[in-house]
Amino acid sequence: TTATPLRVIDTSESWEWWGRCWGYVLAGAGLTENDRLFVPFSFGPFIGFWAAVEGAKGIKALMIPGGGRDSLQRLHLMKELGATAMCCTPTYALRLAEVARDSGFDLCEIPLKTLIHAGEPGANIPATKARIESVWNTKCYDHAGASEVGAHSFECEIQPNGTHAIESEFIVEVLNPETLEPVPAGEQGELVITNLGRIGYPVIRYRSGDLVRLNPESCECGRTFVRFEGGVLGRSDDMVVVRGINVFPSAVENLVRQCEAVEEFRITVSTEREMAHLTIDLEISKNADEETSRHTVDQAIQNELSLRPEIKVVPSGTLPRFEMKAKRFHVEK
Amino acid sequence: TTATPLRVIDTSESWEWWGRCWGYVLAGAGLTENDRLFVPFSFGPFIGFWAAVEGAKGIKALMIPGGGRDSLQRLHLMKELGATAMCCTPTYALRLAEVARDSGFDLCEIPLKTLIHAGEPGANIPATKARIESVWNTKCYDHAGASEVGAHSFECEIQPNGTHAIESEFIVEVLNPETLEPVPAGEQGELVITNLGRIGYPVIRYRSGDLVRLNPESCECGRTFVRFEGGVLGRSDDMVVVRGINVFPSAVENLVRQCEAVEEFRITVSTEREMAHLTIDLEISKNADEETSRHTVDQAIQNELSLRPEIKVVPSGTLPRFEMKAKRFHVEK
Repeated sequence: TTATPLRVIDTSESWEWWGRCWGYVLAGAGLTENDRLFVPFSFGPFIGFWAAVEGAKGIKALMIPGGGRDSLQRLHLMKELGATAMCCTPTYALRLAEVARDSGFDLCEIPLKTLIHAGEPGANIPATKARIESVWNTKCYDHAGASEVGAHSFECEIQPNGTHAIESEFIVEVLNPETLEPVPAGEQGELVITNLGRIGYPVIRYRSGDLVRLNPESCECGRTFVRFEGGVLGRSDDMVVVRGINVFPSAVENLVRQCEAVEEFRITVSTEREMAHLTIDLEISKNADEETSRHTVDQAIQNELSLRPEIKVVPSGTLPRFEMKAKRFHVEK
Repeated sequence: TTATPLRVIDTSESWEWWGRCWGYVLAGAGLTENDRLFVPFSFGPFIGFWAAVEGAKGIKALMIPGGGRDSLQRLHLMKELGATAMCCTPTYALRLAEVARDSGFDLCEIPLKTLIHAGEPGANIPATKARIESVWNTKCYDHAGASEVGAHSFECEIQPNGTHAIESEFIVEVLNPETLEPVPAGEQGELVITNLGRIGYPVIRYRSGDLVRLNPESCECGRTFVRFEGGVLGRSDDMVVVRGINVFPSAVENLVRQCEAVEEFRITVSTEREMAHLTIDLEISKNADEETSRHTVDQAIQNELSLRPEIKVVPSGTLPRFEMKAKRFHVEK
């Protein structure tokens, strides 16, 4: 999101449609009426995971709302009520795991087998996805959507390195953001969306700002819906040019998360003497070695992005934690 | 509620039924598709006002969820989004008004015209209802229900000093709690309920513990549903015997609230030398006179209940504030 939040009002028909789209998301991740879906969310006016509630109703899974309590209370509630699935941001899944560890709560006591993510990239960033799956001992699914268009894509149980677009509810096009001409399958472009069932707020050929790469190959899951290879790859407005190199936050996150010891991080792009400068603050695990961690991240970024960031290890607990969308990437103008 | 909370799971059919019942509640208070209903609630696993969300969908009113923010943020949100109605406990309506006053927020800036209460008595306690209507400059409606049976009664726009039972969805009986024989219309007894549409959790002749008095007279609103005169009058398990006198918390609340200066209060029933003893702590307005306030409450309670309570004026802000069900009545065993 680049500007002030958009205010959208859904009619009851549109709201049913949201639920239908989320039915695809939940069923895609293998949820059935036997599942108990925990939604740890504050249920305010931000649409966020509200539609997951409707989706759960549609597929007749039990929905357990987790509003109005702190992270540790949520963990206890999930254990007590036997949650088998959870919808949250990737950031919050990691945050909950951190709270569990710090308070001696054993995550294995929750019969969770499925995590469904949204709200920010992460479930499609290989190192972040691996981290989440390892701390929770679950499968972790990606999903993408936006308040202004709806929930448009989801990962199926085959997980073919990408998400399916819900082509029964959306027309998707991938265009060159400069020329607005369609790009060939396999090439990266901007996702342009038309939603088909949102009576109260239709959008026609809406420029999402999301960068995707189409893969029209059939999927073993049997769905004929086209796939976004690797999910949403980034946002056209997220890109920062550092010393002539195009840098996407998700690419940096993937490299940082590859270092096992990293618990939290912050990336800052500042300008010094008219040159862009990349700083990375790291919080690392208690027993990890500072020098090794710094070196690992430094090497990964130099190798992959040809950039030499300034890397600092900061004391544990100094970086902000997030319950919803994280803000780990800062550009100082 | 007298014991640990009851855990009830609703099926999707039962949940639709909840929404249908809440449609009666909202329509009874005159809400239409032109209204904007604000629900300032934490949306956790407690069913509370969740069903109000479903009801709003049913009558096509706009629902604005107010989870995950503090009271002042909620006031600003209501103003910004033009809330015309709100569902909350009577206690929280008064709490919001207090927060508004303390932070210089003008309640008139919210186009609110209707308050619908539930979760505790208050909207049927004359002095509390008058207090809420005066600070908010709105009409204030009562409603009653319980997790284990559903939302069973509501006030219509005529406000005939009582609530209508939703007889299309419930069979209501009023029985003598000792003999379990029906009591004549006009006489107080225990409400015994059978719900007709909650497939997933039917209850048959459920003893609610709520005390009501039936009024079968027709209502000017045109509804033929029977009325509970004065709403739910109290709970059979709420009653405390103090020096041979039956004391109901709602009766004491009504007397305390009659004193304009009272901002918050706490009632304690303790036992001293085997005699029950009533203590009332009062927080009063800044410019009010302590002695006068204490005297007013003392006289009201002596006159109406023939009891001599011990009344203390405590410093402002020392008594607890509540966002959901209040706990102002304490019985020390």
